[in-house]
Amino acid sequence: MEISAKNKMKGTIVDITLGSVMAKVKINIGNDNVISSVITIESVADLNLKVGDEVYAIVKSTEVMIGK
Amino acid sequence: MEISAKNKMKGTIVDITLGSVMAKVKINIGNDNVISSVITIESVADLNLKVGDEVYAIVKSTEVMIGK
Amino acid sequence: MEISAKNKMKGTIVDITLGSVMAKVKINIGNDNVISSVITIESVADLNLKVGDEVYAIVKSTEVMIGK
Amino acid sequence: MEISAKNKMKGTIVDITLGSVMAKVKINIGNDNVISSVITIESVADLNLKVGDEVYAIVKSTEVMIGK
Amino acid sequence: MEISAKNKMKGTIVDITLGSVMAKVKINIGNDNVISSVITIESVADLNLKVGDEVYAIVKSTEVMIGK
Amino acid sequence: MEISAKNKMKGTIVDITLGSVMAKVKINIGNDNVISSVITIESVADLNLKVGDEVYAIVKSTEVMIGK
Repeated sequence: MEISAKNKMKGTIVDITLGSVMAKVKINIGNDNVISSVITIESVADLNLKVGDEVYAIVKSTEVMIGK
Repeated sequence: MEISAKNKMKGTIVDITLGSVMAKVKINIGNDNVISSVITIESVADLNLKVGDEVYAIVKSTEVMIGK
Repeated sequence: MEISAKNKMKGTIVDITLGSVMAKVKINIGNDNVISSVITIESVADLNLKVGDEVYAIVKSTEVMIGK
Repeated sequence: MEISAKNKMKGTIVDITLGSVMAKVKINIGNDNVISSVITIESVADLNLKVGDEVYAIVKSTEVMIGK
Repeated sequence: MEISAKNKMKGTIVDITLGSVMAKVKINIGNDNVISSVITIESVADLNLKVGDEVYAIVKSTEVMIGK
Repeated sequence: MEISAKNKMKGTIVDITLGSVMAKVKINIGNDNVISSVITIESVADLNLKVGDEVYAIVKSTEVMIGK
């Protein structure tokens, strides 16, 4: 399945913090950028996410702001 | 002002498409990643955004999904 | 690629309205529910979306509110 | 009060998981679709949400992606 | 219908800009705060929004960032 | 750094609830409006947020719905 969200940044999971409902996953996408993602712990389990996994950080274009 | 959104990716604007209300801005953040941002044309004018500008693409962590 | 977003609703595209930057796509997911999605016209072209296509409406759980 | 968000899917709450700040609520909207919603536990209390309640899952159109 | 989104700010519509798909609506909520909302022109028509209308600007808590 | 998000409401933090991953921060912006923000506890620490701090609640225009 291809998804409409235009921003797909390939990287490696470097940290996972599990809460009771939500989890924070850190993804190193290179070039000094580490992306922080907050998803449900259910999704962490469903995708069997682990530190070291190669994944994509995915963001819908309408969610991206610009700072200057 | 510092902002709580944890994802701030430095890059260069490579394209701006203006609509009647919304605009699409493409930001090259290096490492083969071009980020697409949809903001109001009012914000493009307020920040005086132009192709070639050094900017940050900013995303709240709760807006980042993971694909594997 | 599997995505962390937990809400994936299968349906059929019943209408597409194209603007200059954004597009509105209506997806009939059955049971009297027609989902409205706003994405870039660039994504409509990239996915070659057409009325009648079988697609998924995808929503991150943190974006779902509840009304009672 | 009528709300601008165009996606309002009627369903029944089938599961509630409470964390310390956030809660995950599962809503069966029929046709094999179970929607996952992440809201504050404060909102769960304010709306007095319980398994079995008839509710609406509400999503702003700009938050809906398309997969094909 | 009561909605889980905790932020409901009462105000008056002071400006509406219509595009081909999206519209920008400005809402004066008092205390020097004018809120900008981007919704579909379909929602503007459905709610029959006009300058001068008393409305609520509604925001899900997970969408609010903090600057300091 | 100036940010494209058009809604920046000045206020005072009146409450902070810390979970294991996420935190809820309440900001009084005057005129009877208390804004609820859900961010990571990491951001609360990074910005050193405390009750009584003067901050801005920041919201992207595409995240604002309208109720009438």
